[in-house]
Amino acid sequence: MPELKKTIDNVGGFTVAGIHAGLKADGERDMALIVADTDCISACVFTKNRVKAAPVLVNMQHLEVSAEKMRAVVVNTKSANAATGEQGMHDAQKMASLVADKMGCDVQQVFVMSTGVIGALLPMPKIEVGINKAHAELAHDWESAADAIRTTDIYPKLASITVMTEQGDYTVAGITKGAGMIAPNMATMLGVLVTDAKFTSAEQAQRLLTQTANLSYNRIVVDGDTSTNDMVTLMGSGTSGVEITTEADEAQFSEALTQVATYLAQQVVRDGEGASKFITINVQGAESTVDAEKIAHTIAASPLVKTAFYGNDANWGRMVAAAGRAGIPFDATKLSLWMQVSEQSTENNRGLLLFEAGTKADYDEAEATAIIKHTDITVTLDLNVGDGQAIVWTCDLTHEYVSINADYRT
Amino acid sequence: MPELKKTIDNVGGFTVAGIHAGLKADGERDMALIVADTDCISACVFTKNRVKAAPVLVNMQHLEVSAEKMRAVVVNTKSANAATGEQGMHDAQKMASLVADKMGCDVQQVFVMSTGVIGALLPMPKIEVGINKAHAELAHDWESAADAIRTTDIYPKLASITVMTEQGDYTVAGITKGAGMIAPNMATMLGVLVTDAKFTSAEQAQRLLTQTANLSYNRIVVDGDTSTNDMVTLMGSGTSGVEITTEADEAQFSEALTQVATYLAQQVVRDGEGASKFITINVQGAESTVDAEKIAHTIAASPLVKTAFYGNDANWGRMVAAAGRAGIPFDATKLSLWMQVSEQSTENNRGLLLFEAGTKADYDEAEATAIIKHTDITVTLDLNVGDGQAIVWTCDLTHEYVSINADYRT
Repeated sequence: MPELKKTIDNVGGFTVAGIHAGLKADGERDMALIVADTDCISACVFTKNRVKAAPVLVNMQHLEVSAEKMRAVVVNTKSANAATGEQGMHDAQKMASLVADKMGCDVQQVFVMSTGVIGALLPMPKIEVGINKAHAELAHDWESAADAIRTTDIYPKLASITVMTEQGDYTVAGITKGAGMIAPNMATMLGVLVTDAKFTSAEQAQRLLTQTANLSYNRIVVDGDTSTNDMVTLMGSGTSGVEITTEADEAQFSEALTQVATYLAQQVVRDGEGASKFITINVQGAESTVDAEKIAHTIAASPLVKTAFYGNDANWGRMVAAAGRAGIPFDATKLSLWMQVSEQSTENNRGLLLFEAGTKADYDEAEATAIIKHTDITVTLDLNVGDGQAIVWTCDLTHEYVSINADYRT
Repeated sequence: MPELKKTIDNVGGFTVAGIHAGLKADGERDMALIVADTDCISACVFTKNRVKAAPVLVNMQHLEVSAEKMRAVVVNTKSANAATGEQGMHDAQKMASLVADKMGCDVQQVFVMSTGVIGALLPMPKIEVGINKAHAELAHDWESAADAIRTTDIYPKLASITVMTEQGDYTVAGITKGAGMIAPNMATMLGVLVTDAKFTSAEQAQRLLTQTANLSYNRIVVDGDTSTNDMVTLMGSGTSGVEITTEADEAQFSEALTQVATYLAQQVVRDGEGASKFITINVQGAESTVDAEKIAHTIAASPLVKTAFYGNDANWGRMVAAAGRAGIPFDATKLSLWMQVSEQSTENNRGLLLFEAGTKADYDEAEATAIIKHTDITVTLDLNVGDGQAIVWTCDLTHEYVSINADYRT
């Protein structure tokens, strides 16, 4: 397995820029542009929220028409351009067309992503200035692009992997932003995944992205809210000359893409609003993966579970209670639950047994407290009825989360 | 409509006690006993959590056998007797049998309720002392019983209504505890509703209780968590001589019962862990009541909505976004949303229009802030597609909630 890098040097066929367009008051970067030299076979996953932001609706249409020849992604912060009616749709289209004009491509070859406050219109004059500025600065500084798409994220999130094949090398890379409203089905997650490998079709790209998103971006929970704006795109420039054709090629590509996407998704949780702990919820022995995932998500989203972690309280009772309300039938007397420091957690070392056969296990509370005081903790819940297994990553619920979200707009 | 009283003077056929059994360290009341002089036709609603506490499992069985002749409810705090395995079942049965021995009735005529930490065994010697002490103090001091069932509740919750009929008067009364883990389907809610009216059958009592619970206890959200221990019971002693037989009798009784239960449920929200605001979410114009309720619940449980209220931020965007992820199809361009100070809110005065036809309405932010700064706020969301309507009550998410739940066990 090639090594994951927490940087992006270069991805064949792509240039990027992250600039200050005056959307954020303090001179910080607030717009990003990612541009491909060639038509890219592309795929997207979108928020499942019924209230979709204008850029999401525009992208759905652009993907429909131009999935095999996308050329650019433009991203702005501060305004989500969501719940903005006809003017919002007009502005999102205008944003795409400003980029298309600069590049000499069709408006439908441009994806538009917005993140920030719901209900505020885009300040279009500033957006136009920003697009001009970003276009003039296109280069290979992916960190500036990752930095420019942040909202309440503390640090930029980027990663890449170079895959060696007999045909040659290719790179898979991505940038992502969080950091609140993170839940199953995309949340306020924006992600741009790129590769210089060549897909055979848009269907292939979509299948590979969906598979990966279900194991990464859809496996994280910050607060259980799902945003109107979420979207992750995958674009393949093909400039490496390496084509993903056989099943083995796909498996190799998927492994790299999933590694990049999982790292980025985990970074979103680590940088979750106010988060002080990174918690891995591993549900095993369910009747199916779907069951395991639902239970893991319910535990991960429980405010009582999340506050207990914040309080260094190894409160397995709240985790078992959350599992019980996930809507999945199970026999409570067969449950077991362990807790372990994540770096010591393995399949054969699930850590301290807290709960067994429907009742408290015989353990020392001081030992449990010693584990939960770490910042990186794995909980394993075994239902003991089947082979279904799923991991979900979450963070604790802290005073800081409340502060950030009580004060966000003001 | 007879007037709701926030006290309980006397309910024919019942005596009660709330005492200190040494479960709480500080001398506060921690156990309650409610006893009927005669067999009571009774009904219950139980938690839908898959992990049901021992007392819930015991009560399900007792109700099955003795629904037409229940005699008592015994309640302890500090330990929920949940996830306590066989020993927990044994202890719950023992608790019922200690009461039955005192009263000279069958063990299956006694309901057992426990609330507190999950996973801790009951301190049975103290429980036995408490039952003896409570039995010796049986009288009409309902406030002491309401006080004794509190956990993190700040104040006791009790209410009564006296209904005048041609057959004579009867009383409907209830006590309840909250205060965290409150969500649809009962949460850590314990409630005892009593009347001296006479039911015709256990089926009737169950139907009337279920109806009422769906409009009161199941319409409140504190944090979206559902407890292992929730239960509300309704017991009718019949000593008033008034029998509930005709449809008109049932309607009159239901109105009184729903008024008592709604008041008690709302008190649970007002006294929700760390709550500083009481928020009424009124969803109208949905295709069905079920749809309206699901949307109202999703808005009410959203951490982002709840923190916005805490921050006095009239953030309709978060409410619309929460509505969008409720899983109910709707046309976002038909939505309207208003906000009003609750005491001024009526069907014809929904307050300040914040959102209309899929976009921000033309309103003054200062005016919205002036409304949300009140402690009692009503939000009305109209989907404009049908007649389905539902109200859900919730509270804000505060620093205090995090403090309470991070520190609860320690």
